[in-house]
Amino acid sequence: MLSAEIIAVGSELLTPERTDTNSLWLTEKLNGIGVEVKLKTIVGDDEARLEETIRDALKRSDIVITTGGLGPTEDDITRQVSGRAVARDLVYREELVVELRERFRRWNREMPEINKRQAYVIDGADILPNPNGSAVGMMFENGTPPSRRPPAQEARAGRPHRSRRDGGVPTEDCISMDAGFTLIVLPGPPREMQPMFENFVLPRLKKKAGGIFVKRRILRVSGMGESAVDEIIAPIYKASKKTVQTSILFNKSEIEIHLTAKAKTDKEADATLEELAAKIAAKLGTAVFALKGETMEEIIGKMLAENHKTLSVAESCTGGLIGMRITDVPGSSRYFVEGSVAYSNDAKKQTLLVTDEIINKFGAVSAETAEAMAAGMRSRSGSNYAISVTGIAGPDGGTEEKPVGTVFIGFADEAGAKSIKLMLPGDRYLIRWRSSQAALDYLRRQILKAYE
Amino acid sequence: MLSAEIIAVGSELLTPERTDTNSLWLTEKLNGIGVEVKLKTIVGDDEARLEETIRDALKRSDIVITTGGLGPTEDDITRQVSGRAVARDLVYREELVVELRERFRRWNREMPEINKRQAYVIDGADILPNPNGSAVGMMFENGTPPSRRPPAQEARAGRPHRSRRDGGVPTEDCISMDAGFTLIVLPGPPREMQPMFENFVLPRLKKKAGGIFVKRRILRVSGMGESAVDEIIAPIYKASKKTVQTSILFNKSEIEIHLTAKAKTDKEADATLEELAAKIAAKLGTAVFALKGETMEEIIGKMLAENHKTLSVAESCTGGLIGMRITDVPGSSRYFVEGSVAYSNDAKKQTLLVTDEIINKFGAVSAETAEAMAAGMRSRSGSNYAISVTGIAGPDGGTEEKPVGTVFIGFADEAGAKSIKLMLPGDRYLIRWRSSQAALDYLRRQILKAYE
Repeated sequence: MLSAEIIAVGSELLTPERTDTNSLWLTEKLNGIGVEVKLKTIVGDDEARLEETIRDALKRSDIVITTGGLGPTEDDITRQVSGRAVARDLVYREELVVELRERFRRWNREMPEINKRQAYVIDGADILPNPNGSAVGMMFENGTPPSRRPPAQEARAGRPHRSRRDGGVPTEDCISMDAGFTLIVLPGPPREMQPMFENFVLPRLKKKAGGIFVKRRILRVSGMGESAVDEIIAPIYKASKKTVQTSILFNKSEIEIHLTAKAKTDKEADATLEELAAKIAAKLGTAVFALKGETMEEIIGKMLAENHKTLSVAESCTGGLIGMRITDVPGSSRYFVEGSVAYSNDAKKQTLLVTDEIINKFGAVSAETAEAMAAGMRSRSGSNYAISVTGIAGPDGGTEEKPVGTVFIGFADEAGAKSIKLMLPGDRYLIRWRSSQAALDYLRRQILKAYE
Repeated sequence: MLSAEIIAVGSELLTPERTDTNSLWLTEKLNGIGVEVKLKTIVGDDEARLEETIRDALKRSDIVITTGGLGPTEDDITRQVSGRAVARDLVYREELVVELRERFRRWNREMPEINKRQAYVIDGADILPNPNGSAVGMMFENGTPPSRRPPAQEARAGRPHRSRRDGGVPTEDCISMDAGFTLIVLPGPPREMQPMFENFVLPRLKKKAGGIFVKRRILRVSGMGESAVDEIIAPIYKASKKTVQTSILFNKSEIEIHLTAKAKTDKEADATLEELAAKIAAKLGTAVFALKGETMEEIIGKMLAENHKTLSVAESCTGGLIGMRITDVPGSSRYFVEGSVAYSNDAKKQTLLVTDEIINKFGAVSAETAEAMAAGMRSRSGSNYAISVTGIAGPDGGTEEKPVGTVFIGFADEAGAKSIKLMLPGDRYLIRWRSSQAALDYLRRQILKAYE
């Protein structure tokens, strides 16, 4: 299996606010053709460190990809540094400037002279066109002959030196680089980087990777713990350990089962995943809500649309989160009718028709109120189903008998209303999120019952 | 200024789903004491690559921090590899096992024998206690003498070798490591790593850093573009370029102005920021909604609470997002009364008392409907203010005259109702988010007017 390293270039990626995300997208694409990402580096606009990083990566890994630092300004250093790293000069490509001028003209703008910088490319590298920006990419494969007789410096091509911490003079070589590496230099903006990689890089790497196909599947599970899931499905995935790699991740309010299958053909990988996913689903039963990575709100939407049912939602502590999640799905207007965020008791009474008696006797956070909210919402909106949430998200408002995390979920249909009680861990954000997930899952299980 | 590198260890951090976030938190802390992060690496459970990464980092940078890989299992390799990287053996510390056994007992559990692994620490390193987990951290400073006469391998201490791509036999040395480095080995889970770093590492690094204090401030701006903001405030921040570093970031629906001040004392840094922030705010006027990084919903909450006013919200295309954001703020029940997600026209009529005439004549997405929704919501809830949103979030539902991104924001108070029209760019997610931001900002500006 070929190994790859990804290097993200840019000082803004070394601040507390920003981080590299291009590598996640690239990793998915590389894994998809059977290339393994072995290491990722984030380096600033720092010539010495970037050069050393690229050199070291080329020694260790078959494929090295850099993103960013191809802009026209002073602190865009990736072009010249990547050239040095492979001991090649940059050559000026007039035709690139001509094309860039033309493009600026189409935008009714003069090309700033500064953009000429972007016409310098590594001698011997293939140019990767950039339909969405002014920075072309480069693909340099070891062994490509330089266009001229190599000067002294180039005699060391493929036998790079290391630079000291001070980034100063190169010292004596000590390791010879393995033959056959590929350096791919890409722009930073995703909308430039992604199409460039998919159209001009991926097909070539696929050939190198030698026809291993890697497919991924994500199953989502609700209402079970990580270890419980692992215990149940371990016998299954261990049996197919040779062909499929399985990992179980916990994610806010659900368990994700990631399946990665390697095979000689696309179809074979798909078939393997299909079979394993089915086995796991059978074992876990209704706890599995998504077989192809769908979100809970997508699954709910599908079920409602298929059964021609409508939904309304009455929220207290979630404050609109459930409505927001349901309407996140395009076309949700087909089944989502109305939501109410009944935060105050008056709102619960006036809008959801919860009686004074219920609130006074059982409190706003109670099974009775949750059920009354759902029933009231359903009759107000005329929807087939209604769900409701009332609880204490914290940090304040908890009591001895109803501590922070106490949440009641209500459900109403033509048969009447019912509810469940939950004690949820976490901070305000997590309690609200988990409440919304529990409410949607409660609804999902009711619909499943109705149609089984 | 001291330089640092951060190395995140763990194969799960090289998947398309997960990435290292510890480094963001660490960067903020390091910047805070005047240490600059120069490079970040993410490496899997891969002994050869991890050893090489740590060695190279120690050559380049004053401080090297690793996170993760300290668990008790086979694939937790950071302990032994970091030892090798500084050419020191691991020594077994019985007292750590005793304490760990004791802790397990308190949880009424037997300590698994496997946890003994976590009692091996780098010879000569200081132990960093871990109150929240079983993995202790380590702080190793160059020059610390080993506890015994150094064997052959240790004679090379401080003169590390490099390993080949195959991770095989070390080759001849070629660089002598600079004197004076610090290697800090931390566990991966944030709730273990963060307190360990704050309590046992930060104070010591602060001494090394030599009393440079770095303070940060974030101003948030709404209703202006990145370049417009830059044009207006450039003269101000350029004037104080020596003491404050300024960067302007665009973030979904607002502009963030990041100010970073370096000074000899805490107070001096604060004062510098205070002065610059005030100057910028004066120039930009009401477009600046937060001077200390507060979110829009926090600012709205503050304004409502201070003026003893209440709010209700009527949402169509945002589907509950505005209510969710407002109730994200702890204590929002003091001022938030009720929200309605009137997705269907029936809901707009029945719950928000929008008349058939208005909807038939002007359409559900119109200024008139937005104003009627706000007025209806206000009268239903009896709140002082009401805001409303109706629009087309896409991807479908757009028309010639009302394309995707057409959004109307309504506002109602005792004086009556009014509205604004927006044409928002972006996909469904962004249009919904920007609509919610625009609605909250419209409310903010109305309240400012009322109290100026």
